Amino acid sequence: MNAMLELGRDVLARQPFSGLLGAELVSFETGRAAIELPLRAELHQQNGFAHGGVVCYLADNALTFAGGSVMGSAVVTSEFKINFLRPAQGERLRAEADVLRAGRSQAVVRCEIYALQGAERILCAAAQGTITPLAAPRERG
Amino acid sequence: MNAMLELGRDVLARQPFSGLLGAELVSFETGRAAIELPLRAELHQQNGFAHGGVVCYLADNALTFAGGSVMGSAVVTSEFKINFLRPAQGERLRAEADVLRAGRSQAVVRCEIYALQGAERILCAAAQGTITPLAAPRERG
Amino acid sequence: MNAMLELGRDVLARQPFSGLLGAELVSFETGRAAIELPLRAELHQQNGFAHGGVVCYLADNALTFAGGSVMGSAVVTSEFKINFLRPAQGERLRAEADVLRAGRSQAVVRCEIYALQGAERILCAAAQGTITPLAAPRERG
Amino acid sequence: MNAMLELGRDVLARQPFSGLLGAELVSFETGRAAIELPLRAELHQQNGFAHGGVVCYLADNALTFAGGSVMGSAVVTSEFKINFLRPAQGERLRAEADVLRAGRSQAVVRCEIYALQGAERILCAAAQGTITPLAAPRERG
Repeated sequence: MNAMLELGRDVLARQPFSGLLGAELVSFETGRAAIELPLRAELHQQNGFAHGGVVCYLADNALTFAGGSVMGSAVVTSEFKINFLRPAQGERLRAEADVLRAGRSQAVVRCEIYALQGAERILCAAAQGTITPLAAPRERG
Repeated sequence: MNAMLELGRDVLARQPFSGLLGAELVSFETGRAAIELPLRAELHQQNGFAHGGVVCYLADNALTFAGGSVMGSAVVTSEFKINFLRPAQGERLRAEADVLRAGRSQAVVRCEIYALQGAERILCAAAQGTITPLAAPRERG
Repeated sequence: MNAMLELGRDVLARQPFSGLLGAELVSFETGRAAIELPLRAELHQQNGFAHGGVVCYLADNALTFAGGSVMGSAVVTSEFKINFLRPAQGERLRAEADVLRAGRSQAVVRCEIYALQGAERILCAAAQGTITPLAAPRERG
Repeated sequence: MNAMLELGRDVLARQPFSGLLGAELVSFETGRAAIELPLRAELHQQNGFAHGGVVCYLADNALTFAGGSVMGSAVVTSEFKINFLRPAQGERLRAEADVLRAGRSQAVVRCEIYALQGAERILCAAAQGTITPLAAPRERG
């Protein structure tokens, strides 16, 4: 495993919520990140699909990691939008995020969330958002 | 407890992911919904704040419930955007969603997410999205 | 007319595109801005309503002015989202923008766009976005 | 010129606002559309770049045309979000929109807006939105 992926996994391991959900950083390089999440009943909504909040978690986190890959680890997702395209169901979900443009003050990132079932891969959501450097404590407080 | 709130709580109780997080529907009337979530360490990111995915879960679900309050329970969040304004920390989070405009094919809803600590209430995120009727199985498949 | 409104009108007057459309800054105070636009056939789409691009122009500009009212005039709209609620038709459109939260690095602003016809006022779109300080030339180049 | 492009150009020609701005539909096929706009001083904001409203117009219209290419001409942009990446300057702007997913009730579309100067092509904005069938008059009224 390369050093950058190892670093990213350390960050993810320090997020208790990512542990509760069971997310795995599967790819992390300059300008891109991919996070996967095995699905289980606890992550469902009332119709047996992954809850929208689970899909949002993946989008939010993949966007942040992709932005952090070019801006450093002290970043936050400032905002994003997500469109849900199909019910999220299968063995696992996979979020892939790619930086469209990075500057000193922000990175703009897109993300696609896929449902994986065997060899099949279905696009189930698409997101776009802004990653910014973590502001000084006074600013965020 | 009124019949509408009871109905809404039944729906929430059938969402395993809402149970995993510990969300409570605290208000549900025509055109509005409020969901609260007691914070605990399992819901944090690496800096001790609620994870962005937790805040997104609340926004997504409150938007859906508010939309459902005017369109019926068979609805989904089609899309939304969220801006994170301040770190989400405190005893609990509270999402309040209000319908801006509802028609036959969609409801547009806004939501604010507050961090509650004692008597204090801090706005920490704002969302806006579209709720649509759940399409027939063929459409969503 | 107060000094702040006068300042804002000077900025608007230096935007050729705002002149082409005929926009007027009708209110400008700390944390808020309102821009109006008399409708005419040139601003229509094919069904006789104001073109979505006209509504977007108003949202974009009102968001920027509201953000600028708290951050200074050297700001840009970094991003926004807009939901169209009803066809935009009437004598004029009016965009009202209010700052939700302003810090040193960004302001988050909401905006509603109304169609005005006589005494009637119909909500036809809602927007939410981020205003940031204009970056140094090297950053934006 | 193929029949589909001709049809699309007829629709654009019936939008007075597109005529005022000078937009040209340069490509139109199933699932995609590209619109170009020669820049001139009238379309600027106060710093000599294309006004954000001009960029939004292009995004909005390209999204609608791409959605309409798979759903028929009676469609509207229901909502979209846009991130501005760089100042929009050059000889012309070009918006390229691609459908991510189309169903009976909506199409989700992404769009990139480029500034063109000679052989150079610079990405200056990215958008994502939802196209829906034009509702019956009672619904939209």
